Amino acid sequence: MTTTSDHGATPAPAPPGYTNHKPDHLARLHKIEGQTRGVTRMVTDNRYCIDVLTQISAVTHALQEVALGIMDDHVRHCVTTAVQADPAHGQDKLDELTLALRRTLRL
Amino acid sequence: MTTTSDHGATPAPAPPGYTNHKPDHLARLHKIEGQTRGVTRMVTDNRYCIDVLTQISAVTHALQEVALGIMDDHVRHCVTTAVQADPAHGQDKLDELTLALRRTLRL
Amino acid sequence: MTTTSDHGATPAPAPPGYTNHKPDHLARLHKIEGQTRGVTRMVTDNRYCIDVLTQISAVTHALQEVALGIMDDHVRHCVTTAVQADPAHGQDKLDELTLALRRTLRL
Amino acid sequence: MTTTSDHGATPAPAPPGYTNHKPDHLARLHKIEGQTRGVTRMVTDNRYCIDVLTQISAVTHALQEVALGIMDDHVRHCVTTAVQADPAHGQDKLDELTLALRRTLRL
Repeated sequence: MTTTSDHGATPAPAPPGYTNHKPDHLARLHKIEGQTRGVTRMVTDNRYCIDVLTQISAVTHALQEVALGIMDDHVRHCVTTAVQADPAHGQDKLDELTLALRRTLRL
Repeated sequence: MTTTSDHGATPAPAPPGYTNHKPDHLARLHKIEGQTRGVTRMVTDNRYCIDVLTQISAVTHALQEVALGIMDDHVRHCVTTAVQADPAHGQDKLDELTLALRRTLRL
Repeated sequence: MTTTSDHGATPAPAPPGYTNHKPDHLARLHKIEGQTRGVTRMVTDNRYCIDVLTQISAVTHALQEVALGIMDDHVRHCVTTAVQADPAHGQDKLDELTLALRRTLRL
Repeated sequence: MTTTSDHGATPAPAPPGYTNHKPDHLARLHKIEGQTRGVTRMVTDNRYCIDVLTQISAVTHALQEVALGIMDDHVRHCVTTAVQADPAHGQDKLDELTLALRRTLRL
Protein backbone atom coordinates (compact mmCIF):
# COMPACT_ATOMS: atom_id res chain seq x y z
CA MET A 1 0.00 0.00 0.00
CA THR A 2 1.35 3.37 -1.01
CA THR A 3 0.23 6.89 -0.27
CA THR A 4 -0.57 7.60 -3.90
CA SER A 5 -2.81 4.71 -4.87
CA ASP A 6 -4.40 1.56 -3.49
CA HIS A 7 -5.52 0.42 -6.88
CA GLY A 8 -2.42 -0.07 -8.98
CA ALA A 9 0.45 1.72 -10.58
CA THR A 10 0.24 5.46 -10.99
CA PRO A 11 0.23 6.13 -14.72
CA ALA A 12 3.59 7.33 -15.95
CA PRO A 13 3.51 11.07 -16.64
CA ALA A 14 3.76 12.17 -20.26
CA PRO A 15 7.38 12.41 -21.35
CA PRO A 16 8.62 16.00 -21.56
CA GLY A 17 8.66 17.85 -24.88
CA TYR A 18 12.44 17.60 -25.09
CA THR A 19 12.54 13.80 -25.10
CA ASN A 20 13.80 13.52 -28.68
CA HIS A 21 16.61 16.01 -28.02
CA LYS A 22 17.40 14.81 -24.51
CA PRO A 23 20.84 13.40 -25.43
CA ASP A 24 21.77 16.70 -27.12
CA HIS A 25 20.64 18.77 -24.14
CA LEU A 26 22.50 16.48 -21.71
CA ALA A 27 25.68 16.67 -23.79
CA ARG A 28 25.50 20.47 -23.77
CA LEU A 29 24.73 20.55 -20.05
CA HIS A 30 27.68 18.30 -19.23
CA LYS A 31 29.90 20.66 -21.21
CA ILE A 32 28.38 23.62 -19.33
CA GLU A 33 29.09 21.92 -15.99
CA GLY A 34 32.74 21.64 -17.03
CA GLN A 35 32.81 25.27 -18.15
CA THR A 36 31.31 26.37 -14.83
CA ARG A 37 33.96 24.45 -12.91
CA GLY A 38 36.47 26.15 -15.23
CA VAL A 39 35.24 29.59 -14.13
CA THR A 40 35.64 28.59 -10.47
CA ARG A 41 39.16 27.35 -11.18
CA MET A 42 40.06 30.59 -12.97
CA VAL A 43 38.99 32.64 -9.93
CA THR A 44 40.79 30.23 -7.57
CA ASP A 45 43.94 30.68 -9.67
CA ASN A 46 43.66 34.50 -9.67
CA ARG A 47 43.23 34.64 -13.42
CA TYR A 48 42.80 38.06 -15.02
CA CYS A 49 39.33 39.63 -14.58
CA ILE A 50 38.67 40.07 -18.31
CA ASP A 51 39.49 36.42 -19.00
CA VAL A 52 37.04 35.33 -16.29
CA LEU A 53 34.37 37.61 -17.80
CA THR A 54 34.94 36.13 -21.27
CA GLN A 55 34.44 32.64 -19.89
CA ILE A 56 31.28 33.65 -17.98
CA SER A 57 29.88 35.11 -21.24
CA ALA A 58 30.54 31.78 -22.95
CA VAL A 59 28.72 29.84 -20.20
CA THR A 60 25.67 32.13 -20.16
CA HIS A 61 25.51 31.93 -23.96
CA ALA A 62 25.65 28.13 -23.83
CA LEU A 63 22.91 28.04 -21.16
CA GLN A 64 20.67 30.33 -23.22
CA GLU A 65 21.16 28.00 -26.21
CA VAL A 66 19.91 25.08 -24.10
CA ALA A 67 16.97 27.21 -22.93
CA LEU A 68 16.10 28.09 -26.53
CA GLY A 69 16.27 24.41 -27.51
CA ILE A 70 14.01 23.33 -24.65
CA MET A 71 11.58 26.15 -25.37
CA ASP A 72 11.44 25.07 -29.03
CA ASP A 73 10.77 21.46 -27.97
CA HIS A 74 8.15 22.63 -25.49
CA VAL A 75 6.16 24.67 -28.03
CA ARG A 76 6.50 21.97 -30.68
CA HIS A 77 5.25 19.18 -28.43
CA CYS A 78 3.65 20.15 -25.11
CA VAL A 79 1.92 23.35 -26.23
CA THR A 80 0.85 21.99 -29.61
CA THR A 81 -0.56 18.80 -28.10
CA ALA A 82 -2.42 20.71 -25.39
CA VAL A 83 -3.92 23.18 -27.87
CA GLN A 84 -5.15 20.35 -30.09
CA ALA A 85 -6.49 18.19 -27.26
CA ASP A 86 -8.30 20.75 -25.13
CA PRO A 87 -8.60 24.48 -25.87
CA ALA A 88 -8.89 25.49 -22.20
CA HIS A 89 -5.82 23.50 -21.24
CA GLY A 90 -4.08 24.97 -24.29
CA GLN A 91 -4.73 28.50 -22.95
CA ASP A 92 -3.09 27.55 -19.65
CA LYS A 93 -0.05 26.23 -21.50
CA LEU A 94 0.16 29.45 -23.53
CA ASP A 95 -0.04 31.62 -20.40
CA GLU A 96 2.68 29.51 -18.81
CA LEU A 97 4.89 29.79 -21.92
CA THR A 98 4.67 33.58 -21.91
CA LEU A 99 5.68 33.68 -18.25
CA ALA A 100 8.68 31.46 -19.01
CA LEU A 101 9.63 33.74 -21.91
CA ARG A 102 9.32 36.75 -19.63
CA ARG A 103 11.75 35.19 -17.17
CA THR A 104 14.14 34.18 -19.95
CA LEU A 105 14.09 37.73 -21.36
CA ARG A 106 14.46 39.21 -17.82
CA LEU A 107 11.31 41.33 -18.11
CA MET B 1 68.61 31.94 -19.65
CA THR B 2 64.92 32.41 -20.32
CA THR B 3 63.05 34.79 -22.52
CA THR B 4 61.42 36.48 -19.56
CA SER B 5 64.34 37.25 -17.24
CA ASP B 6 68.11 36.89 -16.93
CA HIS B 7 68.12 37.84 -13.31
CA GLY B 8 66.06 35.33 -11.40
CA ALA B 9 62.44 34.64 -10.59
CA THR B 10 59.75 36.22 -12.73
CA PRO B 11 57.97 38.75 -10.54
CA ALA B 12 54.59 37.56 -9.33
CA PRO B 13 51.82 39.10 -11.43
CA ALA B 14 49.64 41.73 -9.81
CA PRO B 15 46.71 40.13 -7.99
CA PRO B 16 43.44 40.43 -9.95
CA GLY B 17 41.02 43.25 -9.19
CA TYR B 18 38.58 40.85 -7.52
CA THR B 19 41.01 39.74 -4.80
CA ASN B 20 39.06 41.36 -1.96
CA HIS B 21 35.81 39.72 -3.10
CA LYS B 22 37.35 36.40 -4.12
CA PRO B 23 35.66 34.40 -1.31
CA ASP B 24 32.27 35.88 -2.27
CA HIS B 25 32.74 35.09 -5.95
CA LEU B 26 33.91 31.55 -5.16
CA ALA B 27 30.93 30.97 -2.86
CA ARG B 28 28.55 32.10 -5.61
CA LEU B 29 30.37 30.02 -8.22
CA HIS B 30 30.19 26.89 -6.07
CA LYS B 31 26.47 27.46 -5.72
CA ILE B 32 26.21 27.94 -9.50
CA GLU B 33 28.07 24.65 -10.08
CA GLY B 34 25.46 22.93 -7.91
CA GLN B 35 22.63 24.66 -9.77
CA THR B 36 24.11 23.61 -13.11
CA ARG B 37 24.31 19.98 -11.98
CA GLY B 38 20.70 20.45 -10.85
CA VAL B 39 19.65 21.39 -14.38
CA THR B 40 21.37 18.29 -15.76
CA ARG B 41 19.60 16.14 -13.17
CA MET B 42 16.23 17.69 -14.03
CA VAL B 43 16.69 16.81 -17.71
CA THR B 44 17.94 13.32 -16.81
CA ASP B 45 14.79 12.85 -14.69
CA ASN B 46 12.47 14.06 -17.49
CA ARG B 47 11.29 17.02 -15.46
CA TYR B 48 8.78 19.37 -17.03
CA CYS B 49 10.19 21.76 -19.67
CA ILE B 50 8.99 24.93 -17.94
CA ASP B 51 10.60 23.90 -14.64
CA VAL B 52 13.91 23.30 -16.44
CA LEU B 53 13.63 26.74 -18.09
CA THR B 54 12.97 28.40 -14.72
CA GLN B 55 16.09 26.79 -13.29
CA ILE B 56 18.21 27.81 -16.32
CA SER B 57 16.99 31.42 -15.86
CA ALA B 58 18.11 31.28 -12.23
CA VAL B 59 21.59 30.02 -13.21
CA THR B 60 22.10 32.63 -15.95
CA HIS B 61 20.97 35.35 -13.55
CA ALA B 62 23.42 34.13 -10.91
CA LEU B 63 26.25 34.03 -13.47
CA GLN B 64 25.48 37.57 -14.63
CA GLU B 65 25.61 38.72 -11.00
CA VAL B 66 29.11 37.25 -10.68
CA ALA B 67 30.09 38.95 -13.96
CA LEU B 68 28.77 42.30 -12.69
CA GLY B 69 30.71 41.87 -9.44
CA ILE B 70 33.96 41.04 -11.25
CA MET B 71 33.46 43.92 -13.67
CA ASP B 72 32.93 46.29 -10.73
CA ASP B 73 36.12 45.00 -9.07
CA HIS B 74 37.99 45.31 -12.36
CA VAL B 75 37.05 48.95 -12.98
CA ARG B 76 37.63 49.86 -9.33
CA HIS B 77 41.10 48.33 -9.17
CA CYS B 78 42.74 47.31 -12.47
CA VAL B 79 41.37 50.11 -14.66
CA THR B 80 41.74 52.82 -12.03
CA THR B 81 45.32 51.82 -11.23
CA ALA B 82 46.29 51.66 -14.90
CA VAL B 83 44.76 55.07 -15.66
CA GLN B 84 46.61 56.66 -12.75
CA ALA B 85 49.96 54.95 -13.46
CA ASP B 86 50.24 55.34 -17.20
CA PRO B 87 47.73 57.08 -19.50
CA ALA B 88 48.61 54.98 -22.56
CA HIS B 89 48.21 51.73 -20.62
CA GLY B 90 44.99 53.17 -19.18
CA GLN B 91 43.59 53.60 -22.70
CA ASP B 92 44.33 49.94 -23.47
CA LYS B 93 42.51 48.88 -20.31
CA LEU B 94 39.52 51.05 -21.25
CA ASP B 95 39.36 49.56 -24.77
CA GLU B 96 39.54 46.08 -23.27
CA LEU B 97 36.76 46.90 -20.78
CA THR B 98 34.42 48.05 -23.52
CA LEU B 99 35.02 44.84 -25.47
CA ALA B 100 34.22 42.81 -22.35
CA LEU B 101 31.04 44.84 -21.83
CA ARG B 102 30.09 44.27 -25.47
CA ARG B 103 30.41 40.51 -24.98
CA THR B 104 28.47 40.61 -21.71
CA LEU B 105 25.67 42.61 -23.38
CA ARG B 106 25.75 40.28 -26.45
CA LEU B 107 26.31 43.15 -28.89
CA MET C 1 -9.95 46.56 -63.40
CA THR C 2 -7.28 46.84 -60.79
CA THR C 3 -3.55 46.38 -60.89
CA THR C 4 -3.69 43.36 -58.67
CA SER C 5 -6.34 41.21 -60.32
CA ASP C 6 -8.57 41.02 -63.37
CA HIS C 7 -10.73 38.38 -61.81
CA GLY C 8 -12.09 39.92 -58.67
CA ALA C 9 -10.99 41.10 -55.29
CA THR C 10 -7.74 39.74 -53.92
CA PRO C 11 -8.62 37.99 -50.69
CA ALA C 12 -7.65 40.10 -47.73
CA PRO C 13 -4.66 38.58 -45.95
CA ALA C 14 -5.34 37.02 -42.58
CA PRO C 15 -5.17 39.65 -39.85
CA PRO C 16 -2.01 39.40 -37.75
CA GLY C 17 -2.07 37.54 -34.43
CA TYR C 18 -1.88 40.80 -32.48
CA THR C 19 -5.15 42.20 -33.87
CA ASN C 20 -7.00 42.02 -30.55
CA HIS C 21 -4.16 43.81 -28.74
CA LYS C 22 -3.34 46.25 -31.55
CA PRO C 23 -4.56 49.33 -29.64
CA ASP C 24 -2.45 48.34 -26.62
CA HIS C 25 0.65 47.77 -28.73
CA LEU C 26 0.15 51.07 -30.57
CA ALA C 27 -0.31 52.97 -27.30
CA ARG C 28 2.94 51.49 -25.97
CA LEU C 29 4.75 52.20 -29.23
CA HIS C 30 3.61 55.83 -29.26
CA LYS C 31 4.95 56.18 -25.73
CA ILE C 32 8.21 54.54 -26.83
CA GLU C 33 8.50 57.02 -29.73
CA GLY C 34 8.21 59.85 -27.20
CA GLN C 35 10.79 58.21 -24.93
CA THR C 36 13.18 57.79 -27.86
CA ARG C 37 12.85 61.48 -28.77
CA GLY C 38 13.47 62.16 -25.07
CA VAL C 39 16.81 60.32 -25.25
CA THR C 40 17.82 62.39 -28.29
CA ARG C 41 16.86 65.58 -26.44
CA MET C 42 18.88 64.54 -23.38
CA VAL C 43 21.99 64.06 -25.52
CA THR C 44 21.33 67.33 -27.36
CA ASP C 45 21.08 69.10 -23.99
CA ASN C 46 24.34 67.52 -22.70
CA ARG C 47 22.53 65.69 -19.92
CA TYR C 48 24.60 63.52 -17.60
CA CYS C 49 25.73 60.17 -19.07
CA ILE C 50 24.16 58.05 -16.33
CA ASP C 51 20.78 59.75 -16.75
CA VAL C 52 20.89 59.05 -20.50
CA LEU C 53 21.75 55.39 -19.78
CA THR C 54 18.83 55.10 -17.35
CA GLN C 55 16.46 56.40 -20.00
CA ILE C 56 17.86 54.06 -22.67
CA SER C 57 17.31 51.11 -20.27
CA ALA C 58 13.69 52.20 -19.87
CA VAL C 59 13.15 52.34 -23.64
CA THR C 60 14.75 48.95 -24.32
CA HIS C 61 12.68 47.43 -21.50
CA ALA C 62 9.50 48.92 -22.98
CA LEU C 63 10.39 47.62 -26.45
CA GLN C 64 11.04 44.14 -25.09
CA GLU C 65 7.63 44.22 -23.38
CA VAL C 66 6.00 44.97 -26.75
CA ALA C 67 8.03 42.15 -28.33
CA LEU C 68 6.88 39.73 -25.61
CA GLY C 69 3.26 40.79 -26.15
CA ILE C 70 3.44 40.32 -29.92
CA MET C 71 5.20 36.97 -29.49
CA ASP C 72 2.43 35.85 -27.11
CA ASP C 73 -0.22 36.93 -29.62
CA HIS C 74 1.66 35.19 -32.42
CA VAL C 75 1.90 31.83 -30.65
CA ARG C 76 -1.69 32.07 -29.42
CA HIS C 77 -3.14 32.80 -32.85
CA CYS C 78 -0.87 32.35 -35.89
CA VAL C 79 1.08 29.33 -34.66
CA THR C 80 -1.90 27.61 -33.05
CA THR C 81 -4.07 28.07 -36.13
CA ALA C 82 -1.34 26.83 -38.46
CA VAL C 83 -0.66 23.76 -36.33
CA GLN C 84 -4.34 22.85 -36.25
CA ALA C 85 -4.97 23.50 -39.96
CA ASP C 86 -1.96 21.88 -41.56
CA PRO C 87 0.83 20.03 -39.75
CA ALA C 88 3.48 20.81 -42.38
CA HIS C 89 2.66 24.52 -42.34
CA GLY C 90 2.64 24.33 -38.55
CA GLN C 91 6.23 23.04 -38.60
CA ASP C 92 7.29 26.02 -40.72
CA LYS C 93 5.65 28.39 -38.25
CA LEU C 94 7.43 26.69 -35.35
CA ASP C 95 10.81 26.94 -37.09
CA GLU C 96 10.16 30.61 -37.78
CA LEU C 97 9.15 31.24 -34.14
CA THR C 98 12.37 29.73 -32.84
CA LEU C 99 14.40 31.94 -35.17
CA ALA C 100 12.52 35.01 -33.91
CA LEU C 101 13.15 33.94 -30.32
CA ARG C 102 16.83 33.46 -31.12
CA ARG C 103 17.03 37.03 -32.43
CA THR C 104 15.11 38.40 -29.45
CA LEU C 105 17.45 36.58 -27.04
CA ARG C 106 20.51 37.70 -29.07
CA LEU C 107 21.80 34.17 -29.58
CA MET D 1 22.15 85.38 -0.92
CA THR D 2 22.32 81.91 -2.35
CA THR D 3 24.50 78.98 -1.53
CA THR D 4 25.92 78.74 -5.01
CA SER D 5 27.05 82.27 -5.89
CA ASP D 6 26.67 85.94 -4.92
CA HIS D 7 28.61 87.16 -7.87
CA GLY D 8 26.82 86.29 -11.06
CA ALA D 9 26.05 83.37 -13.32
CA THR D 10 26.25 79.84 -12.01
CA PRO D 11 29.29 78.23 -13.63
CA ALA D 12 28.44 76.02 -16.57
CA PRO D 13 28.44 72.35 -15.57
CA ALA D 14 31.22 70.16 -16.90
CA PRO D 15 30.38 68.82 -20.36
CA PRO D 16 29.24 65.19 -20.35
CA GLY D 17 31.72 62.39 -21.07
CA TYR D 18 30.18 61.78 -24.50
CA THR D 19 30.92 65.27 -25.84
CA ASN D 20 33.45 64.09 -28.42
CA HIS D 21 31.06 61.45 -29.75
CA LYS D 22 27.91 63.55 -29.44
CA PRO D 23 27.37 63.84 -33.23
CA ASP D 24 27.72 60.06 -33.61
CA HIS D 25 25.28 59.36 -30.79
CA LEU D 26 22.78 61.88 -32.17
CA ALA D 27 23.03 60.40 -35.67
CA ARG D 28 22.33 56.92 -34.27
CA LEU D 29 19.47 58.23 -32.12
CA HIS D 30 17.83 59.97 -35.06
CA LYS D 31 18.01 56.71 -36.99
CA ILE D 32 16.51 54.88 -33.98
CA GLU D 33 13.65 57.42 -33.83
CA GLY D 34 12.91 56.59 -37.48
CA GLN D 35 13.09 52.85 -36.78
CA THR D 36 10.73 53.24 -33.83
CA ARG D 37 8.21 55.10 -35.98
CA GLY D 38 8.69 52.27 -38.48
CA VAL D 39 7.62 49.70 -35.88
CA THR D 40 4.50 51.73 -35.11
CA ARG D 41 3.71 51.94 -38.82
CA MET D 42 4.15 48.18 -39.23
CA VAL D 43 1.64 47.49 -36.46
CA THR D 44 -0.75 50.12 -37.86
CA ASP D 45 -0.52 48.38 -41.26
CA ASN D 46 -1.15 44.91 -39.75
CA ARG D 47 2.24 43.64 -40.83
CA TYR D 48 3.14 40.06 -39.97
CA CYS D 49 4.07 39.45 -36.30
CA ILE D 50 7.49 37.96 -37.06
CA ASP D 51 8.45 40.95 -39.23
CA VAL D 52 7.48 43.32 -36.40
CA LEU D 53 9.58 41.26 -33.96
CA THR D 54 12.59 41.38 -36.30
CA GLN D 55 12.33 45.15 -36.47
CA ILE D 56 11.98 45.48 -32.67
CA SER D 57 15.14 43.36 -32.27
CA ALA D 58 16.97 45.74 -34.60
CA VAL D 59 15.86 48.79 -32.58
CA THR D 60 16.79 47.30 -29.20
CA HIS D 61 20.18 46.27 -30.62
CA ALA D 62 20.77 49.81 -31.93
CA LEU D 63 19.78 51.30 -28.55
CA GLN D 64 22.13 48.97 -26.70
CA GLU D 65 24.94 50.05 -29.04
CA VAL D 66 24.30 53.69 -28.10
CA ALA D 67 24.25 52.70 -24.40
CA LEU D 68 27.58 50.88 -24.79
CA GLY D 69 29.09 53.92 -26.52
CA ILE D 70 27.89 56.32 -23.82
CA MET D 71 29.10 53.97 -21.08
CA ASP D 72 32.52 53.81 -22.74
CA ASP D 73 32.65 57.62 -22.94
CA HIS D 74 31.52 57.86 -19.33
CA VAL D 75 34.21 55.56 -17.94
CA ARG D 76 36.88 57.11 -20.17
CA HIS D 77 36.10 60.68 -19.12
CA CYS D 78 33.80 61.20 -16.11
CA VAL D 79 34.93 58.23 -14.03
CA THR D 80 38.61 58.59 -14.88
CA THR D 81 38.62 62.32 -14.11
CA ALA D 82 36.78 61.82 -10.83
CA VAL D 83 39.11 59.03 -9.70
CA GLN D 84 42.18 61.17 -10.43
CA ALA D 85 40.81 64.35 -8.87
CA ASP D 86 39.31 63.05 -5.64
CA PRO D 87 39.33 59.42 -4.46
CA ALA D 88 36.12 59.76 -2.42
CA HIS D 89 34.25 61.28 -5.36
CA GLY D 90 35.77 58.58 -7.55
CA GLN D 91 34.21 55.90 -5.33
CA ASP D 92 30.79 57.51 -5.75
CA LYS D 93 31.21 57.50 -9.52
CA LEU D 94 32.21 53.83 -9.46
CA ASP D 95 29.18 52.89 -7.34
CA GLU D 96 26.96 54.81 -9.74
CA LEU D 97 28.55 53.09 -12.76
CA THR D 98 27.87 49.63 -11.35
CA LEU D 99 24.23 50.54 -10.73
CA ALA D 100 23.93 51.73 -14.34
CA LEU D 101 25.50 48.50 -15.55
CA ARG D 102 23.10 46.51 -13.39
CA ARG D 103 20.15 48.27 -15.04
CA THR D 104 21.61 47.79 -18.53
CA LEU D 105 22.13 44.07 -17.86
CA ARG D 106 18.62 43.79 -16.30
CA LEU D 107 19.91 42.36 -13.02
